[in-house]
Amino acid sequence: MTVLPDEDALISQLFAPIAGAGSLGLRDDAALLPAPAGSELVLTVDVIVADVHFFRDDPPGAVARKALRVNLSDLAAKGAEPLGFLLALSLRRDTSLAWLTAFSEGLGADARLYGCPLLGGDTVRTEGPLTVSITAIGRVPTGYMVRRTGARPGDILAVTGTIGDSALGLRLRLDGQEAGWRDVLTPAEQAHLARRYLLPEPRNALALAVREHASGAMDVSDGLVGDARKFLRASGVSGELDLDCIPLSLAARAAITAAPDMLLAAATGGDDYEVLCAVAPEHLSGFQRQCAGAKVPLTAIGRVTAGDAPLAVRLHGAEIAVMQGSFSHF
Amino acid sequence: MTVLPDEDALISQLFAPIAGAGSLGLRDDAALLPAPAGSELVLTVDVIVADVHFFRDDPPGAVARKALRVNLSDLAAKGAEPLGFLLALSLRRDTSLAWLTAFSEGLGADARLYGCPLLGGDTVRTEGPLTVSITAIGRVPTGYMVRRTGARPGDILAVTGTIGDSALGLRLRLDGQEAGWRDVLTPAEQAHLARRYLLPEPRNALALAVREHASGAMDVSDGLVGDARKFLRASGVSGELDLDCIPLSLAARAAITAAPDMLLAAATGGDDYEVLCAVAPEHLSGFQRQCAGAKVPLTAIGRVTAGDAPLAVRLHGAEIAVMQGSFSHF
Repeated sequence: MTVLPDEDALISQLFAPIAGAGSLGLRDDAALLPAPAGSELVLTVDVIVADVHFFRDDPPGAVARKALRVNLSDLAAKGAEPLGFLLALSLRRDTSLAWLTAFSEGLGADARLYGCPLLGGDTVRTEGPLTVSITAIGRVPTGYMVRRTGARPGDILAVTGTIGDSALGLRLRLDGQEAGWRDVLTPAEQAHLARRYLLPEPRNALALAVREHASGAMDVSDGLVGDARKFLRASGVSGELDLDCIPLSLAARAAITAAPDMLLAAATGGDDYEVLCAVAPEHLSGFQRQCAGAKVPLTAIGRVTAGDAPLAVRLHGAEIAVMQGSFSHF
Repeated sequence: MTVLPDEDALISQLFAPIAGAGSLGLRDDAALLPAPAGSELVLTVDVIVADVHFFRDDPPGAVARKALRVNLSDLAAKGAEPLGFLLALSLRRDTSLAWLTAFSEGLGADARLYGCPLLGGDTVRTEGPLTVSITAIGRVPTGYMVRRTGARPGDILAVTGTIGDSALGLRLRLDGQEAGWRDVLTPAEQAHLARRYLLPEPRNALALAVREHASGAMDVSDGLVGDARKFLRASGVSGELDLDCIPLSLAARAAITAAPDMLLAAATGGDDYEVLCAVAPEHLSGFQRQCAGAKVPLTAIGRVTAGDAPLAVRLHGAEIAVMQGSFSHF
């Protein structure tokens, strides 16, 4: 068993240096944050668990960044700008100081990158798997949070970035050489898929565009098909999703060409951390222009219709049944 | 293994009914809270772990309430009023629906009692011990958060409520019949100590009085002596703490009369969740009156002095060395 410094020493050595002003140096009972005038607070919490949401041998900096980024992705989908976050860390007794140092460095790098400072935290030891729980706080101008209930009949369903990279990256990692389609990918393509699993790319650069143009939105974390179902159900509408239209990276396209059933893996696998939006047709091109300015594609993948029929999923022009619409981490 | 409903069903059946308006029915990616004008937000996170911070066979409602109350105690010590909280729950695979139902009922009862609604959450399964992480959000008028750095030479050190009940309740529970002093306690006194361990009584009713009268404050969670040391160190001052003055319940007094070394257990054992304050002498009586109005005593236990000498702890007029000043859960 490694002997770590006590909690006070860990905080002052590793976490205070990466903390924001509102953290009060992580030396008080609580953090302090000005309540932004004319705003509403947007609050979200997500937990990631070793060997469920990440691998225990993932680089510690990547674990920290994933824990923060899955929360940032929720803020992005709501059109919110980040204000800061709190960290609850359940460490195994064998966690080393080197691991924690790299973890805090990764966390600090992303806190700076996304303008989302560490405000407070708590650290406990556990016999169980290492677990990272982050609560992120963002803001929107009052009345402007983009809701999951906002999709309206006539809207276009659209999604940012590319879908399925992370799910295919996870497959590559789990199946090793058994993934027959591995060999059709260049090393760079394999690395791209692996990286998208290891490190989500939340679309916070698009938060203002989402706020300006989307009628409703949610982040895609549990699989595109299942999340689209949740989205439409929450909005009390129906719709269609065309799998031929879902945006794929070159790497994912190569994998799917070699192994066509990987398309369904991509569409249901989860961990995409893209933004799924409902967009009024007259907003689509302006929205796409703003996304292009941030070097992220926005792709129309379906449409919202009236009624409460379940989402229709189409492939090659025919409706197909997708039973396992999403991946449940739970 | 028990088969629990899926996460969406758990949320809609157990947690949505106890959630506040800002939770949006726990059906969106994030919660929404108006940013209170002229205010600062006070943010804190605390994690409790089975068999570290509570016993795995504690009533589930009490586990939920303790998880919320340890956070409410931080808000109380900062003079902040609660706005709401987010819950991150790591459940064992053998957690039953009955357990979770009782957990959510306890949580809902305290959310109502303290005016601190559930705003959002995340639930994961773990192979490790059941872990509850809560992030609480409060508010103070801008500039009025009571800080740990605020103690000034000349201030009186004072503490709310009684000290040591929880530590002695834990001893009773751990030592069973081995605790020789058990027999001097009436069943009601034993129950009092056990209850103070099981269920903290955070001093949120005193938050406004703390804000009005205390120069600085912190909550006592890790043991009075150690927390007083932290408090004075954070404030850059020195001071004295008189163990003869610490407020004791009748039950704790009876235990200490029978077993005098229980005084040190009481003063260092932790889990008190009282407010330790530095109070200018001219504020003391007004502060005490307000506390009495809430039926909670406020007791002077020492004084703040200039300099950076370590806290002097006195007993029966002589300075004593207290090596283990606080209990570390970590």
